[in-house]
Amino acid sequence: MQRTIGIITEYNPFHNGHLYQIRQVKKQFPNAPLVIAMSGNFLQRGEPAIIDKWHRAAECLANGADLVMELPLMAAVQPADRFAYYGVWTLAQMGVTDLFFGAEHAEFDFMHDAHKAIEIIGNFNQYHESFAKTYQQVVTEKVGHPVDQPNDLLGLAYAKANLKLKAGINLHPIQRKNANYHDIELNDAGTIASASAIREALHRQNQDFEKFVPQQTAHDLKMQRLVSWNDFWMHLKMELLTHSAQELEKIYGMAEGIQYRMIAMAQRSEFAGNFDSWIKAVKNKRFTYTRLSRLATMTLLHISWDDVASFESRPYLRVLGFSKKGQAVLHEAKKNCDYPIITNVSQDEKKGILRIDYRAGKVYQAVCGNEQDLKHAPVMTVK
Amino acid sequence: MQRTIGIITEYNPFHNGHLYQIRQVKKQFPNAPLVIAMSGNFLQRGEPAIIDKWHRAAECLANGADLVMELPLMAAVQPADRFAYYGVWTLAQMGVTDLFFGAEHAEFDFMHDAHKAIEIIGNFNQYHESFAKTYQQVVTEKVGHPVDQPNDLLGLAYAKANLKLKAGINLHPIQRKNANYHDIELNDAGTIASASAIREALHRQNQDFEKFVPQQTAHDLKMQRLVSWNDFWMHLKMELLTHSAQELEKIYGMAEGIQYRMIAMAQRSEFAGNFDSWIKAVKNKRFTYTRLSRLATMTLLHISWDDVASFESRPYLRVLGFSKKGQAVLHEAKKNCDYPIITNVSQDEKKGILRIDYRAGKVYQAVCGNEQDLKHAPVMTVK
Repeated sequence: MQRTIGIITEYNPFHNGHLYQIRQVKKQFPNAPLVIAMSGNFLQRGEPAIIDKWHRAAECLANGADLVMELPLMAAVQPADRFAYYGVWTLAQMGVTDLFFGAEHAEFDFMHDAHKAIEIIGNFNQYHESFAKTYQQVVTEKVGHPVDQPNDLLGLAYAKANLKLKAGINLHPIQRKNANYHDIELNDAGTIASASAIREALHRQNQDFEKFVPQQTAHDLKMQRLVSWNDFWMHLKMELLTHSAQELEKIYGMAEGIQYRMIAMAQRSEFAGNFDSWIKAVKNKRFTYTRLSRLATMTLLHISWDDVASFESRPYLRVLGFSKKGQAVLHEAKKNCDYPIITNVSQDEKKGILRIDYRAGKVYQAVCGNEQDLKHAPVMTVK
Repeated sequence: MQRTIGIITEYNPFHNGHLYQIRQVKKQFPNAPLVIAMSGNFLQRGEPAIIDKWHRAAECLANGADLVMELPLMAAVQPADRFAYYGVWTLAQMGVTDLFFGAEHAEFDFMHDAHKAIEIIGNFNQYHESFAKTYQQVVTEKVGHPVDQPNDLLGLAYAKANLKLKAGINLHPIQRKNANYHDIELNDAGTIASASAIREALHRQNQDFEKFVPQQTAHDLKMQRLVSWNDFWMHLKMELLTHSAQELEKIYGMAEGIQYRMIAMAQRSEFAGNFDSWIKAVKNKRFTYTRLSRLATMTLLHISWDDVASFESRPYLRVLGFSKKGQAVLHEAKKNCDYPIITNVSQDEKKGILRIDYRAGKVYQAVCGNEQDLKHAPVMTVK
């Protein structure tokens, strides 16, 4: 059987840990094409990517990936379960047979656990703090061991999506090395640091970051305008100052009247100085930092419940780049795929199916300076 | 009969020409109180004021004014006729008996002309370029002489408002001196230059501006963060990038599908670099620069047709500052006035009647740094 490998990721930025993961894949399947499902310019945790999707796609293509698919914003900026679902869905559409992912406990049998945990989701209709805790408790009860680390939870979500989609993808958890997600300081002992540690170093203008990323990433990080929530805070603040609570109700994810609190804190100068102090002032038990960050992204981009419902009723696939091998995968996938696969953005798509991603691209472009969608052909490598 | 003098103005900034006008008033009515109806932080031509309303109010109070009333944003950011109407209405509510204003032709009998021109307005329901031209033609026909200079036209609008409101205010046109509205270069010969010439000098960081403004204005212009459309352009652009044409239809003044053009030009990087290049790209025969600037202000602040309709059905008066003499005028006016007179902004007003001005203040504050409405008592002088 011809294998096609998949990875679901954000590459924010693409670093040596990601490269290590690709090399693990290549060791096991030296000739199989590698498909990446990657978030675009806004990420799962509700923050802008540090550099744009085109540079991140090119970085992984230069380091062994064959086909890079963008997770549409409305699929990417979502709680872990939904993000995982669209990631697996995207890979399945591309004919992926084997999914690799990092896990704190690579020894878990994720498919086995997924069978036991499959019906849990849906009992909790809000993604607040107590939901996360309750969810972990119920999962632990059902599967018989604690699943409470971020990558393990994501792994379980992939497995559940795999079941639901009847995708029959083989899962390959890889034990995470040297750096865990919560590291802040760069790890001087090795060449692997977490993405958040690398971003932190960049924001402190610490040049040490170079030893933790492949050459092309280092180049991009030096040449590109790095983007963070600080760049968008004033725009989000303006949106909050100029729209009524009633208008903001239609923003995707708005619930329990939290918009009143979002507006009130944006009006108070002691909290409204930057994104971080604002979000900490808004935060409460039911709205965690991450849930609010996602909501802030949806508010910044003015994305409504209707927009997301319309995406969910007709999801699509977006190509960011490919190698020759990746092109063949794409070619094959197009034969069987019932959903739109967008390679070049036309005026019709800009105004139609892709309008929210186009919008997000324009907002991101206003800071980073690079055109994001129209007139942007996929990145092609000649390997 | 006790006289109360009124002036309708923007003081952007308060300069020697304005001081000269106040001295003309004082020469004729040395003891009469002087009431100013002044735009707030956004002005008639759809631009932000160079310094905030509180500083501008204090400047004129320090130079002979007795009571400063703010024209609410929805009264100020309007075509000349409507701006003039609310200006006269405000002064009439304060018991003003005599209105002074600059005119290119002080010899015109404005009340006489107003009687002849009173029914003209309303025949043209859009404020496009051809409207302005047609309006001037019809006025010329009706009154028997050309009225085509900006201050003469404003004078005629005051006179028409005076008639409509049956306010019985005496009009005192003053011949404009030394500088006309369209001057760009500072006039080295004298101490009077137009407000636009002074702003131009400030933006070029030309220190010569000091000889054209009273001491307090010079101090404010040196100490305050000067504000211009450049400060708001990126926020307006974000609003245009993230809202659909259908949503923008509800913005006050939106007509003829111009929002499609506003959005399209904000998406195109060759025009979207700054406010001026964007507005010049959007401009057409039916939407002049000034009409678009007002529309841009309404879009930036997300003010709807409903907001303006609700203001018009229940207008209000706002006090920015007073001298002892002005306080007496205010005290007297409160006895007869049927409309809300707001002196200190409470939480109720912030969320209710004053919500749009509060919003505009918060947006302006995000740039200038000074709290604008809540916790801001009127400026009081001890004269």
